Amino acid sequence: MIQETARLLQRKDNIHILCHASPDGDTLGSGSALLLALRQLGKRAALYCGDPIPQRYAFLLEGIAQEEFEPDFVVSVDVADQKLLGSLRTRYEEKIDLAIDHHASHVQFAKHLCLDVHSAAATEIIYRILQELGAEITVQIATAIYTGVSTDTGCFRYQNTTANSHRTAGAMMDFGAPAGEINQMLFETKTKGLVAAEVAAMSSVEYFHGGICALMVISREMMEKTGLLDQEQDALVGIPRQIEGVSIGITLKEKPEGGFKASVRTNPPMDAAAICGKIGGGGHKGAAGCSITLPLIQAREKILGAVSAYLQEQDL
Amino acid sequence: MIQETARLLQRKDNIHILCHASPDGDTLGSGSALLLALRQLGKRAALYCGDPIPQRYAFLLEGIAQEEFEPDFVVSVDVADQKLLGSLRTRYEEKIDLAIDHHASHVQFAKHLCLDVHSAAATEIIYRILQELGAEITVQIATAIYTGVSTDTGCFRYQNTTANSHRTAGAMMDFGAPAGEINQMLFETKTKGLVAAEVAAMSSVEYFHGGICALMVISREMMEKTGLLDQEQDALVGIPRQIEGVSIGITLKEKPEGGFKASVRTNPPMDAAAICGKIGGGGHKGAAGCSITLPLIQAREKILGAVSAYLQEQDL
Repeated sequence: MIQETARLLQRKDNIHILCHASPDGDTLGSGSALLLALRQLGKRAALYCGDPIPQRYAFLLEGIAQEEFEPDFVVSVDVADQKLLGSLRTRYEEKIDLAIDHHASHVQFAKHLCLDVHSAAATEIIYRILQELGAEITVQIATAIYTGVSTDTGCFRYQNTTANSHRTAGAMMDFGAPAGEINQMLFETKTKGLVAAEVAAMSSVEYFHGGICALMVISREMMEKTGLLDQEQDALVGIPRQIEGVSIGITLKEKPEGGFKASVRTNPPMDAAAICGKIGGGGHKGAAGCSITLPLIQAREKILGAVSAYLQEQDL
Repeated sequence: MIQETARLLQRKDNIHILCHASPDGDTLGSGSALLLALRQLGKRAALYCGDPIPQRYAFLLEGIAQEEFEPDFVVSVDVADQKLLGSLRTRYEEKIDLAIDHHASHVQFAKHLCLDVHSAAATEIIYRILQELGAEITVQIATAIYTGVSTDTGCFRYQNTTANSHRTAGAMMDFGAPAGEINQMLFETKTKGLVAAEVAAMSSVEYFHGGICALMVISREMMEKTGLLDQEQDALVGIPRQIEGVSIGITLKEKPEGGFKASVRTNPPMDAAAICGKIGGGGHKGAAGCSITLPLIQAREKILGAVSAYLQEQDL
């Protein structure tokens, strides 16, 4: 699979790389590493994302000049479903030649698929493809690959982390990835606003189903009061699941345009993707999400209803 | 150094292994892995610690029966200074044959020293010794080694993490260490008391020196009100340093017998050991501590005085 993927890429010279909307460290790390490797091989490559690049991940694209050209090949990275291309969807729908992905929930949309659901991060797959392509792993490529692994594994904390995740991270550090600095920036730094927001959000936690389900709310009012930025909210969604005895942690984040984004984080055997799937969302077993365009009281009822239905099905 | 250390151990048959007081995952992981390997080789081995084993690390010693015998060899693991043996000191002072350690602040006390300051965890050194001894890495040994690495690197987040830390972790997962479960238990689970204590402790944070230094207080009253256990406090001491712009994070924890334990966590270029060294403490560059037997107002002044003196010396 890796060999075939490398061969497909080798044959083409003008390649568009697509990341998913609401980009994270893994889709951007995958895109950046692949783009740099393809340019090393003398090809034209450009990276597209349907949403703006969050400030915290801007370093992944530092110094990469964007080029405009018509592609002879389009590849998506870390995209589980065409829907997740966001605003790129209209332009690229049904025109994607290759999807490189690691989501078990992948819904096939590309002509060719390079899917490894055992990889914790898409950049672990990208690394193998780059080795097959004979690309030199520069510091910038190593940084991109490391970032994908560390962000998708919660810095090697989550259950999805494998021996290969560690080996990839170790290899990237040998290639010069500044892991300490990256982690410092992505995982160890909280703005004063975030600290204040944590205090407020943690005070909102409610428990359900005998304490195995915890629900936390991040309101716009809370965000405005504490000066929390939209992209900082992600740091909060892990909180409910961390509480002892909780295996289904839910965060309802109020959206600027109204309604809520529900983020569900679970511990085994609970399945976050199955819960969110009941109300039009999706994701991984341990982390999934969905959008609920309703006021707080009803949004809360809707997601808790999905949890109840899931628990009944599982006979739990 | 590793070869010589293995040879020393091979020659002896009745070995006492000493951990440091206030035991953590690395000293207990090192002790447990070494004990199990020595017993595999047909030797008698016993593990001692000057303090009770915290509940969260009890799994490292599960199923290990203690034996009583007179040693012909005494080895300390992860002990930077004889003083840190606590209540074992009287019995073993000047009687330690071998110290296996990774602290740059190591003060030599043993006849033989196996010191590698580049290892993030003492268990990384233990793994190399076990390979040299030809020990079989069982699931229990792999669990102990993984736990040392993951606890001493803050689950691969801290600046001390090296490529070798990741390679060791990956190898241990291959040998069957249940990394996901260990991390879940050690890093991802907070009691409801801890969540409440976090809210209280975070509300106490004060800033000094233009925001580069943050000080947080954990009082006995706070602990009693929230039901926080003594061993859970460790999870809080990382908070001040995590705040944006803070490179010296201090936590003052009130001790049951009165007075305070100061825990200092720094980001480069700040040196926590140098700060604590000014008032009789010590540790690593990024994490150090000291005991201050004074009421809160004076304890606060004393540690902040050490910070000021350190910053002046550094011309910062």
